[in-house]
Amino acid sequence: MRVSNHRRAGVDDVFGRLDEIRGDLTALYKDLHAHPELSFQEHRTAAEVARRLGDLGFEVTTGVGGTGVVGVLRNGAGPTVLLRADFDALPVLEQTGLDYASRERATSSDGSDVPVMHACGHDMHVTCLLGALDLLVDARSRWSGTVLAVFQPAEEIGAGAQAMLDDGLLERFPRPDVCLGQHVFPFRSGAVGMMTGPSMSAADGLKITMFGRGGHGSQPQNTVDPVVMASATVLRLQTVVSREVAGDDTAVVTVGSIRAGSKENIIPEQAELLVNVRSFDERVRERVLAAVRRIVRAEAVASGADREPEFEQLTRFPLLLNDPDATARTAGALRAALGEKSVVDLPPAMASEDVGLFGTAAGVPTCYWFFGGTDAVRFQEAVAEDAVAERIPANHSPHFAPEVEPTLTTGVKALTTAALEWLD
Amino acid sequence: MRVSNHRRAGVDDVFGRLDEIRGDLTALYKDLHAHPELSFQEHRTAAEVARRLGDLGFEVTTGVGGTGVVGVLRNGAGPTVLLRADFDALPVLEQTGLDYASRERATSSDGSDVPVMHACGHDMHVTCLLGALDLLVDARSRWSGTVLAVFQPAEEIGAGAQAMLDDGLLERFPRPDVCLGQHVFPFRSGAVGMMTGPSMSAADGLKITMFGRGGHGSQPQNTVDPVVMASATVLRLQTVVSREVAGDDTAVVTVGSIRAGSKENIIPEQAELLVNVRSFDERVRERVLAAVRRIVRAEAVASGADREPEFEQLTRFPLLLNDPDATARTAGALRAALGEKSVVDLPPAMASEDVGLFGTAAGVPTCYWFFGGTDAVRFQEAVAEDAVAERIPANHSPHFAPEVEPTLTTGVKALTTAALEWLD
Amino acid sequence: MRVSNHRRAGVDDVFGRLDEIRGDLTALYKDLHAHPELSFQEHRTAAEVARRLGDLGFEVTTGVGGTGVVGVLRNGAGPTVLLRADFDALPVLEQTGLDYASRERATSSDGSDVPVMHACGHDMHVTCLLGALDLLVDARSRWSGTVLAVFQPAEEIGAGAQAMLDDGLLERFPRPDVCLGQHVFPFRSGAVGMMTGPSMSAADGLKITMFGRGGHGSQPQNTVDPVVMASATVLRLQTVVSREVAGDDTAVVTVGSIRAGSKENIIPEQAELLVNVRSFDERVRERVLAAVRRIVRAEAVASGADREPEFEQLTRFPLLLNDPDATARTAGALRAALGEKSVVDLPPAMASEDVGLFGTAAGVPTCYWFFGGTDAVRFQEAVAEDAVAERIPANHSPHFAPEVEPTLTTGVKALTTAALEWLD
Amino acid sequence: MRVSNHRRAGVDDVFGRLDEIRGDLTALYKDLHAHPELSFQEHRTAAEVARRLGDLGFEVTTGVGGTGVVGVLRNGAGPTVLLRADFDALPVLEQTGLDYASRERATSSDGSDVPVMHACGHDMHVTCLLGALDLLVDARSRWSGTVLAVFQPAEEIGAGAQAMLDDGLLERFPRPDVCLGQHVFPFRSGAVGMMTGPSMSAADGLKITMFGRGGHGSQPQNTVDPVVMASATVLRLQTVVSREVAGDDTAVVTVGSIRAGSKENIIPEQAELLVNVRSFDERVRERVLAAVRRIVRAEAVASGADREPEFEQLTRFPLLLNDPDATARTAGALRAALGEKSVVDLPPAMASEDVGLFGTAAGVPTCYWFFGGTDAVRFQEAVAEDAVAERIPANHSPHFAPEVEPTLTTGVKALTTAALEWLD
Repeated sequence: MRVSNHRRAGVDDVFGRLDEIRGDLTALYKDLHAHPELSFQEHRTAAEVARRLGDLGFEVTTGVGGTGVVGVLRNGAGPTVLLRADFDALPVLEQTGLDYASRERATSSDGSDVPVMHACGHDMHVTCLLGALDLLVDARSRWSGTVLAVFQPAEEIGAGAQAMLDDGLLERFPRPDVCLGQHVFPFRSGAVGMMTGPSMSAADGLKITMFGRGGHGSQPQNTVDPVVMASATVLRLQTVVSREVAGDDTAVVTVGSIRAGSKENIIPEQAELLVNVRSFDERVRERVLAAVRRIVRAEAVASGADREPEFEQLTRFPLLLNDPDATARTAGALRAALGEKSVVDLPPAMASEDVGLFGTAAGVPTCYWFFGGTDAVRFQEAVAEDAVAERIPANHSPHFAPEVEPTLTTGVKALTTAALEWLD
Repeated sequence: MRVSNHRRAGVDDVFGRLDEIRGDLTALYKDLHAHPELSFQEHRTAAEVARRLGDLGFEVTTGVGGTGVVGVLRNGAGPTVLLRADFDALPVLEQTGLDYASRERATSSDGSDVPVMHACGHDMHVTCLLGALDLLVDARSRWSGTVLAVFQPAEEIGAGAQAMLDDGLLERFPRPDVCLGQHVFPFRSGAVGMMTGPSMSAADGLKITMFGRGGHGSQPQNTVDPVVMASATVLRLQTVVSREVAGDDTAVVTVGSIRAGSKENIIPEQAELLVNVRSFDERVRERVLAAVRRIVRAEAVASGADREPEFEQLTRFPLLLNDPDATARTAGALRAALGEKSVVDLPPAMASEDVGLFGTAAGVPTCYWFFGGTDAVRFQEAVAEDAVAERIPANHSPHFAPEVEPTLTTGVKALTTAALEWLD
Repeated sequence: MRVSNHRRAGVDDVFGRLDEIRGDLTALYKDLHAHPELSFQEHRTAAEVARRLGDLGFEVTTGVGGTGVVGVLRNGAGPTVLLRADFDALPVLEQTGLDYASRERATSSDGSDVPVMHACGHDMHVTCLLGALDLLVDARSRWSGTVLAVFQPAEEIGAGAQAMLDDGLLERFPRPDVCLGQHVFPFRSGAVGMMTGPSMSAADGLKITMFGRGGHGSQPQNTVDPVVMASATVLRLQTVVSREVAGDDTAVVTVGSIRAGSKENIIPEQAELLVNVRSFDERVRERVLAAVRRIVRAEAVASGADREPEFEQLTRFPLLLNDPDATARTAGALRAALGEKSVVDLPPAMASEDVGLFGTAAGVPTCYWFFGGTDAVRFQEAVAEDAVAERIPANHSPHFAPEVEPTLTTGVKALTTAALEWLD
Repeated sequence: MRVSNHRRAGVDDVFGRLDEIRGDLTALYKDLHAHPELSFQEHRTAAEVARRLGDLGFEVTTGVGGTGVVGVLRNGAGPTVLLRADFDALPVLEQTGLDYASRERATSSDGSDVPVMHACGHDMHVTCLLGALDLLVDARSRWSGTVLAVFQPAEEIGAGAQAMLDDGLLERFPRPDVCLGQHVFPFRSGAVGMMTGPSMSAADGLKITMFGRGGHGSQPQNTVDPVVMASATVLRLQTVVSREVAGDDTAVVTVGSIRAGSKENIIPEQAELLVNVRSFDERVRERVLAAVRRIVRAEAVASGADREPEFEQLTRFPLLLNDPDATARTAGALRAALGEKSVVDLPPAMASEDVGLFGTAAGVPTCYWFFGGTDAVRFQEAVAEDAVAERIPANHSPHFAPEVEPTLTTGVKALTTAALEWLD
């Protein structure tokens, strides 16, 4: 085990710098948390990131894919390692009671005024990446290669990674040899969780409009009732998973919203369904999406609709494929740096991310991992009582609030370690 | 046929006065049309009605059942005849293009700002009743008895008649021997339509809230999906009419609105259905309502809901039972006064009214009829092309616009004639 | 009331003959009841009918439309009156306990061995018609014209009337001026019930085969599940009546049978639905049948079926339209002959008959009535306790057993009276 | 790798005997194939097995758990190894066209006459086990311990293993230290497939009877329609998998049969569903079964049924848990004996077996594997064209026909090798 001792010694030296900047990072984290910004509106965040990247000596480019920020640090020959943090927040009304809780509101893309909250921990991602970059700069004599720091907007709507790629990320900046990133989640703080192979589900968000013909509630014979049409569709959509997906394949089809009409005695003109499809296999995904479309269209015909339903793709998250070799290598480095017990294997997560688009576009491996944000004692108690789902606020909850420490320290160390593993 | 000649001569004399006041009534109608008021907000209308009643020599009481107005004219011994006009308007944006079209807006009971329009012709009802009262006053030497003029608020929400009764209508004022009223509708102007027996459907408006348990769209197993629950309920509710109502009974169950959720990847907490039930028989009505409740509750159980669904009665219109004898008598009088061809028999209407509550509460017969508001030529053309539903804007349409004449004249004459028939 | 007295006197004379033949008719009825025959297998019945017609002096033709028998009695100039009795029985296991109960069995059209019972009273129809013909022959000096006695096979499957027409009934025999017939039903014996206008529903029997793709129950993804497909179809078919038929129109859509598969772990290849559609209006009927087909096809598409569903028309009964004038005339004669209290008006029946095809094909009026078969006291008790449906076995019940008297007497008198009314 | 060389050398010596008996085994296999017997009717097969066990020197007990046969061979101190073969056939009409195809028919448990076929390869299982026992007897000097040969009846209905245990298998015979068995399946002949952990699904077969109230198809209001009730239930049951099972858990709920009614115009009294539930986790199984019961009961309530549905457990197969250590050890031995390429790892199979009951009851590990029965070239071609499901007849197909060789040789070798591994 000399190698890992050597490694550990190496990263332990590097980690020394963290004690000097921890206070500043903590303040940064709380400031970001108090000032969340919606997808593609991350102007304040981007400016702060850009300022700090500049201070660290990175070449800084802003406005990449809208509000994205790219920092490049060239440090001699060697591999280029892409380190990614996403930085948008959510239209959630924070209920954490934290003294640095958000009171922000913003105008959402549909024009409505909404509260805003870092309910998915992207503030922690930004803080940890800036911390890791500081450590890497501090330790630049110990490695050679190029660090490509990617601060991505609009992950929550599955649009930011693609926007940065479309804006020339791979052409305008050094091409990466590996893509690394991490996400905070409701697990014991101090630990990281590794997934290999298909790791996070593909997710498609669809808006489906079904058209009936409205009329008076007492005269259904003169109408095509979209309430019945949409309801029959929802029931029929249940058969996609129950009948068209093999028991040992994985897919979820959720109709998150159904809306039609506003009065009891008026049959409305149309109905709207918002549908979310999760899958772990492109073949399954395509079959499921085709089945959804087939069923929606057929149910419109069954109702005698005059007009075809309309489908709008709201979001599209790719399947996250963690490269098995890259993951094994990274996990080895993390085990050496953080200790065996702090690195656990996790099954695939029924959640979605667009981080994988970078590696796919570049044709290089991705390794993306989770790091815990929940007080370890509290987490173990919840596990012991089989009450994690009830007790530990998950991402997107108005109560989501990572413990700042040891979460921040773990996130910085994990990212630094992984980067060094690939830069070495 | 001496009797009807005699009658005709009689009312023809009475009708002479109409020529003197037609201009004023027309102006009144246009003024009311331009200034519609929502249910229980009919303050301006009530004030105008009260003022005119006073001028006609009626004892006037305002504020009966909220904004209702009652006028009493005692004219010697004899029967008391209740003449009813409803006077509220609807939250509809007028699109008639008339020069006296409404531009009014108001705050609805749920706090939202809405347009207001006399889209159901209650302005015509008020005008005709005031006109008829004028004629009756003018002809007071020809009849004896008491006229009880009831200007009712809030018919559109099925609440005004009950509110007036609850406020002592039958105790505070002379008790009627018969209840008469009329409604303008899309039929040839100049004609009246009589219905006998069960004439307008009972209507129940229900708000049903079904409770699931929300969660992430990717984790349905941790939720109770209210979208599926409500959709299954809508489909199952179709069986009430298809399986539990005899083919030769009449009922309609419409789910006018279904609403649950707002994001594709969040399973919401609950779903709301707005349901409208129409029936023509109390036994059928009770069976249908019981079946609706049974199905809603069972579908909640089928979904594994933790909480019972909630039912709120939004509106409740009684079945309108036109007393066959009273209707035959009134129809005879109308035929004599307006001519055989101007009085037609109509089948029961799948529409609802609360006018019947007065007669039911008083234990006396009701006779309620329709009078046409559509240009006769235009109407016949539409009939000839089987296009009435497409061509003639029906009540509640933003295009609903009765021809002022001969509609107004017919309405005044019909009401006057019917009143005289019962006061004679 | 001289006219009806005259009539009564006239038919009373004619009825005298009945006392002489009642014993023979009763024996005939019990013999027919004990020896029921399935549709188009009525050989024994036809032979008995033909023999008796010959004895009465009729020109007899057998084998009309399969097993039908036609008797013609020409008695001078005058109208031709078609008198119709149907004579087939049902595959029902008799449970009446009568000493003349059927013990017959037969081979049904699908090859299976089934019990046979006169569970719809066609034995009574035959007996009454033969009795009436006897009286008419006996009274031939009192009338002139032609009696066309039609003993029809296969009414139960809606095929016999058409078969007789297709076999030249109108061309080979005197063309009728009116078509008369009657049906025994669970009402007080001694009474007849008249319906006017649309009187008995049109009925369409459909066999629908929906094709999936079978496979192992654990591998639904490799199949198209016809159980789900057919079940979704059944639910969707409920919307035909609930949404596509006006509340004041009449239609019933019943799926009387659904059958698919035979093992729990094998997904079958196909499913079969047997559907019955009742209607009272050709326009409604066509809309309903079109909706059934549309829904079935669309649900097959929703399931991803490779093959179109197949539709087979099993039975088709026309709407029975009783001519209002002919019915009023016939009812008048029956009232005169049987007494006012013995003739009641009935609403349309949600049951079906092919008797109307004769009049429709000939372009002449039809009058078809019901006559009661239940002991009057027992019937009134059931009415008083609102338990007719529970207490009085209806047609097609294994317990259906008309009281022989006064049912037989009433049936003979009614038919004789009606015939004389039109022959006079 | 000396160990495996040693092993291989060892088993290769043992395998020599196979050349002497292969002809006899092949004849036995074809004879068994030509004479299949239904579950618990395996009298001829049992007699043949017993005779051969006796010839090999086993202590033989017949009639264990009905028609089961147990053979014991004590060969000094050491572990007891249970080797299991099932020997019942299926009610399938063989369509293989083989010259030794079955022409047998039998009376099934419901009294009907059915064809019988070894459509699941149990004839091969019996042959391989008898061959392996011969080799073990022949090589008895090379091992010590006890061989417990279990020839089990009625695997197809999930009843035989339990019947043998209930009949004292563990008490009357030497208690096993490990349970081994194998199943032929549509994979390349010559290969064996190993599964570890949860390997074959639990399966529950349910018969569900739902009670309505029958009546005439035109009078649904007097009935509780079981066709609608059952159809709604089938659709709702789809939500069990779609909403109540996590995307990454595994369950299948199939309604293999729905049956209600037989005429289009009669609403039947009841409906019958046959349901198959597959699962890989007892917790998931219990949740699914509870959900099925909840939904069925609630849908009966939704229909207004007077009587609770009835549930009958038709079959119950346990989850097959292959002990990971025992599987690893056995797999190692098989790799050594058959070659690395001939032993593949397989994912869990969505199929069911009751073999696991022996090990569970005894509290000892089970290792159960598959061996291929399809010509390797043909199989690879089907794989290459992604057409295995279409081209290669699977178990229970009327075309299921394992290649006799090298299937038989592989099955004998695998069982012998595994037994020796545990007897060593």
